[in-house]
Amino acid sequence: MAQARLSIDLGELRANWRALNALTSTETAAVVKADAYGLGIDPAAKALAEEGARTFFVALTEEGAELRRVLGDGPTINVFSGHMEGDTALLRDAQLTPMLNSIDQMLRHVEALPGHAFGVQLDTGMNRLGMEPDEWAALRHVALSQNPTLLMSHLACADEPDHTMNAQQLQVFQEMTEGTGVPRSLAATGGILLGPDYHFDMTRPGIGLYGGLPFAEARTVVTLDIPVIQIREVAAGETVGYGNNWTAQAPARIATIAAGYADGLIRAMGPDGFVWAGDSRCKIVGRVSMDMIGVDISGVEGEPDSVQMLGDRQSVDTLADAAGTIGYEILTSLGARYDRVHTGG
Amino acid sequence: MAQARLSIDLGELRANWRALNALTSTETAAVVKADAYGLGIDPAAKALAEEGARTFFVALTEEGAELRRVLGDGPTINVFSGHMEGDTALLRDAQLTPMLNSIDQMLRHVEALPGHAFGVQLDTGMNRLGMEPDEWAALRHVALSQNPTLLMSHLACADEPDHTMNAQQLQVFQEMTEGTGVPRSLAATGGILLGPDYHFDMTRPGIGLYGGLPFAEARTVVTLDIPVIQIREVAAGETVGYGNNWTAQAPARIATIAAGYADGLIRAMGPDGFVWAGDSRCKIVGRVSMDMIGVDISGVEGEPDSVQMLGDRQSVDTLADAAGTIGYEILTSLGARYDRVHTGG
Repeated sequence: MAQARLSIDLGELRANWRALNALTSTETAAVVKADAYGLGIDPAAKALAEEGARTFFVALTEEGAELRRVLGDGPTINVFSGHMEGDTALLRDAQLTPMLNSIDQMLRHVEALPGHAFGVQLDTGMNRLGMEPDEWAALRHVALSQNPTLLMSHLACADEPDHTMNAQQLQVFQEMTEGTGVPRSLAATGGILLGPDYHFDMTRPGIGLYGGLPFAEARTVVTLDIPVIQIREVAAGETVGYGNNWTAQAPARIATIAAGYADGLIRAMGPDGFVWAGDSRCKIVGRVSMDMIGVDISGVEGEPDSVQMLGDRQSVDTLADAAGTIGYEILTSLGARYDRVHTGG
Repeated sequence: MAQARLSIDLGELRANWRALNALTSTETAAVVKADAYGLGIDPAAKALAEEGARTFFVALTEEGAELRRVLGDGPTINVFSGHMEGDTALLRDAQLTPMLNSIDQMLRHVEALPGHAFGVQLDTGMNRLGMEPDEWAALRHVALSQNPTLLMSHLACADEPDHTMNAQQLQVFQEMTEGTGVPRSLAATGGILLGPDYHFDMTRPGIGLYGGLPFAEARTVVTLDIPVIQIREVAAGETVGYGNNWTAQAPARIATIAAGYADGLIRAMGPDGFVWAGDSRCKIVGRVSMDMIGVDISGVEGEPDSVQMLGDRQSVDTLADAAGTIGYEILTSLGARYDRVHTGG
């Protein structure tokens, strides 16, 4: 088998939810959009529901409908993209709660699904999703009369605790929501770590559940082991991979491993990336190919059958650094071709 | 619906295969690894088989087994990773032809599946997969006595026609294979364009089929339309997205569109990427989020319901340039969350 193995430890996922939950005295929801950040919404959401999560967030109604099939009746499923044209039947049939983003969405929702649960997303400065303060001021009275289940906003700079934007957004959120009597939510993982002022009535961690920064105490959820297809000796001066991009400076042993950018191992990680063969850190050599990567195993004893790309020795954030991105993108890029194994369910 | 639509034009896929086939006088196979470069192996392989392709290449035996279910008996399915430990049953049951890469693989194959078809992959300088000249010299006599179906190698620099590596690899390939009487293959898309010396008995295009460079005449196979969730006015000085990464220099209209890096829209494209709203090219502003991207639609009349990320106005290679990568990675990264529509089948 040249198929790489992606192991997802649901026990550690649960542990991360418990740890984030223990940091606050309010409800802890779970963000499971993008197929639970690439790890499988079905097993991940079930594990989190068993652990005690009662509210889930997804990006699209289509994701919400799938999640409803997974979880059955009971849990609240909130949809960040709100009530888009064409969403009405799915929202109704799957009992999803749209987080309305605009006056247009509010009008659409109240007209199409009167009495159906909804939340309101407020823009407190990120300028991405949600009603602006002036829109909200105009609509607030009407919106509140329809009994929204949640008022929420999203922090643009929560990963940088010292950024002045955090306090600014907090203040705007307080001004927009104070005295409404409606449950409020501002914090994702980064916001939880900013402290109790940011917690309000519900937090909604995502990346921290899946083992990524800014939750530095997160436990490792993902392990990725990649088989070695072939090992060869190269002489000094020989090149490896596309574009003759890497040249051996000394005799070296090169392993060709069976995963590449088609498996979500971002091509940009080539020059700075490493994998692990047992206790040895092995440099990626040459360009990352679609289905293969070359690694220098000169320092390894014997012939490894596989190497580890992600796991206790190399976090999603370490790999992200090598690829010039963030752990979130490492996770959500993990491809469909792996042998996916969920443990600890 | 906030779900983006990925349209895959199988008619144009067929046209690309015909065009590449017309460039040579030898057999034209088709590389459909990595789920047909992200576009769906089932419809893509069926369309290519109907067009006349009789030989297909995949990376893994698991892919080969899936492809056999799709195509049924008849077509040859070659596996680049060869005969790995654990592959024997799948190779046998799905009648797959491994392209053996090493002496180890050769011994494993002949012992486990005597008489079962195989090819041999030769390393002509890329140092990625295949037997080295000295290994081949030692094994050649034995290997040829087992009647391999194909001798093949892969070019490291075929995308750069003037690179001296091309002629070097051609010469090594000729030396390693001359007089064997076995069918030979050296050229993928780039090799086809290098001319008849590189064509031998079979070419095996991949990227060119799917609309990417170096096949500049390729027809557009992929169109990606992304719904607009919300449009807002921002004042000069306001910031958009994570990390306050973009600041409006003048009043602007910003659309938040419903796809992000979890959909394979590589995060690195943020600073240099564009989308199209009708005839207007619109700059991406701020960081690409997991499920959303901000775009500046100040120059657009009215309120677009969607924007186009890929299509006739923007090729996979143009988008790849913005993301600092190659069209191949744009294609294979396209995510699972799209509404995928195959036309022209």
